[in-house]
Amino acid sequence: MAERVFINDVGPRDGLQNQSKILAPQQRLELISALVKAGLGAVEVGSFVSPKAVPAMAGTDEIVAGLPPGNTYYSALIPNRRGYDLAVAAGVKAVGIVVASTQMMNEKNIRQSTEQAMAGCAEIIAQSKLDGIDTLAYVATAWECPFEGTVDASVVIEMTGQMLDMGATRVVVADTIGAANPAQVKSLMGALVNQFGADRLACHFHDTRGMGVADVYAAVQEGIRHFDASIGGLGGCPFAPGATGNVATEDVVVMLEQMGFDTGINLPRLVEAVDLATELTGNCDGGHSLRWVRRQIEKGVL
Amino acid sequence: MAERVFINDVGPRDGLQNQSKILAPQQRLELISALVKAGLGAVEVGSFVSPKAVPAMAGTDEIVAGLPPGNTYYSALIPNRRGYDLAVAAGVKAVGIVVASTQMMNEKNIRQSTEQAMAGCAEIIAQSKLDGIDTLAYVATAWECPFEGTVDASVVIEMTGQMLDMGATRVVVADTIGAANPAQVKSLMGALVNQFGADRLACHFHDTRGMGVADVYAAVQEGIRHFDASIGGLGGCPFAPGATGNVATEDVVVMLEQMGFDTGINLPRLVEAVDLATELTGNCDGGHSLRWVRRQIEKGVL
Repeated sequence: MAERVFINDVGPRDGLQNQSKILAPQQRLELISALVKAGLGAVEVGSFVSPKAVPAMAGTDEIVAGLPPGNTYYSALIPNRRGYDLAVAAGVKAVGIVVASTQMMNEKNIRQSTEQAMAGCAEIIAQSKLDGIDTLAYVATAWECPFEGTVDASVVIEMTGQMLDMGATRVVVADTIGAANPAQVKSLMGALVNQFGADRLACHFHDTRGMGVADVYAAVQEGIRHFDASIGGLGGCPFAPGATGNVATEDVVVMLEQMGFDTGINLPRLVEAVDLATELTGNCDGGHSLRWVRRQIEKGVL
Repeated sequence: MAERVFINDVGPRDGLQNQSKILAPQQRLELISALVKAGLGAVEVGSFVSPKAVPAMAGTDEIVAGLPPGNTYYSALIPNRRGYDLAVAAGVKAVGIVVASTQMMNEKNIRQSTEQAMAGCAEIIAQSKLDGIDTLAYVATAWECPFEGTVDASVVIEMTGQMLDMGATRVVVADTIGAANPAQVKSLMGALVNQFGADRLACHFHDTRGMGVADVYAAVQEGIRHFDASIGGLGGCPFAPGATGNVATEDVVVMLEQMGFDTGINLPRLVEAVDLATELTGNCDGGHSLRWVRRQIEKGVL
């Protein structure tokens, strides 16, 4: 039997929050439903941030209330304890918490030092254990920070260890700005897997410099079996020309399935989700493999 | 000092021969000049095939006569001995010869058995040694054949050994239809490098399934330092929807430079070549890294 790789589609959060066009909760639910129908085992459904700060994520509580039933592993991002409380009140069973690897990124992003952010993370994880809630702890800008440049691996290794010690369900090592090359990914993920094992680690890549798929391959080589990806490569920021989205779910699925892994995902239905994302946002490029996948569907091969 | 990786831009041949729009030799020369200005150390300038069979490659002799002077390593593809003679008469110093790994591909492509094609290859290489001409011997469909499916590594290893024994300057292992996943690339190139060393081997990838950049990374890991790529990912076939071009030169350059290799290529000038390819063909997607590269140029970082 083929070995399983687990893909968490973060399009409804990381993808949609960066669109200029704001979707209604019902439209976001439509996209989530399409992903569930395609066989995604995990979906990040939204974010419990201030609707003033990120209007695109307003109404995530409505989304949680309307999620399709089944075994899908749903998570929502939270920026702080207040977000955590809102998420739990809404019925969320798994939360994502983000701490960047550098002081400047934490200061710019959440106006906290790294130490403050880690303390907040520890508090939320401690509460989550009492509440029976899973925590996905993100180490953001794990390879490169837009303000401080290249990040030393030892920093990420230490933060990962601390987050696991706090009791995080999984630590997600995130190339937030899509800067990591596959040799860097192999090096850091190899060190992390060596120290902590692969089971409680995941990776999150962006395709900004066209290296997203190669980065996934490099992490897979080191034993990582949990990845974030975004339907159609959804993401990017309309205010930052040159920014692009997460590595596209369809590209990750195509490569992994061709490598003999089982992703549990149905490609024709995944393409329907890409089409829906395109229709809803008007700003979805689709993955690099999409033309080929469409052709295989036309030919009846997929 | 950074280690050098050598990129051979095959856009003026593999890219342009698959366009519905046929360019004049003068336009093709403009593109070649742009590539030389960008610092490409090697360019495949055209093909000495029948202009009836491939009208887009007509006038390659004019192109050879008008090539920019300097140290660029120019090659031209030849289908057979007649093509070889025409190429040498035109002044070509390096020729590309293609033999597919499978009987059906050779039969469909050149109406020869693999044995006949290898015998023709041996004859041309023998003559090239007398003439002081370099030969780049391509093993096409090295991982997968559209007619016979997955290709056994032992077949490619044997053909590569035979071509090197014949005296080929370099053997180019080619994923002609863009089907190889990086694990397959690592496996085959590892075996080939182990047996023959990396110096006389090169790789040629297409990005059909979005794995081109990952495939380059996998081959680099095995020690390969010579790659074909195509400006802007030029290629694909207007008659085969779903087909896409070679891995884009700019994507290969971005990844390799970020990995610390020296490609000798100037990215702003390479983008000018992408723009020219787009202007000339009207059908050039540009690589996955292109938006980011343009942004770096705007910001004055590149």
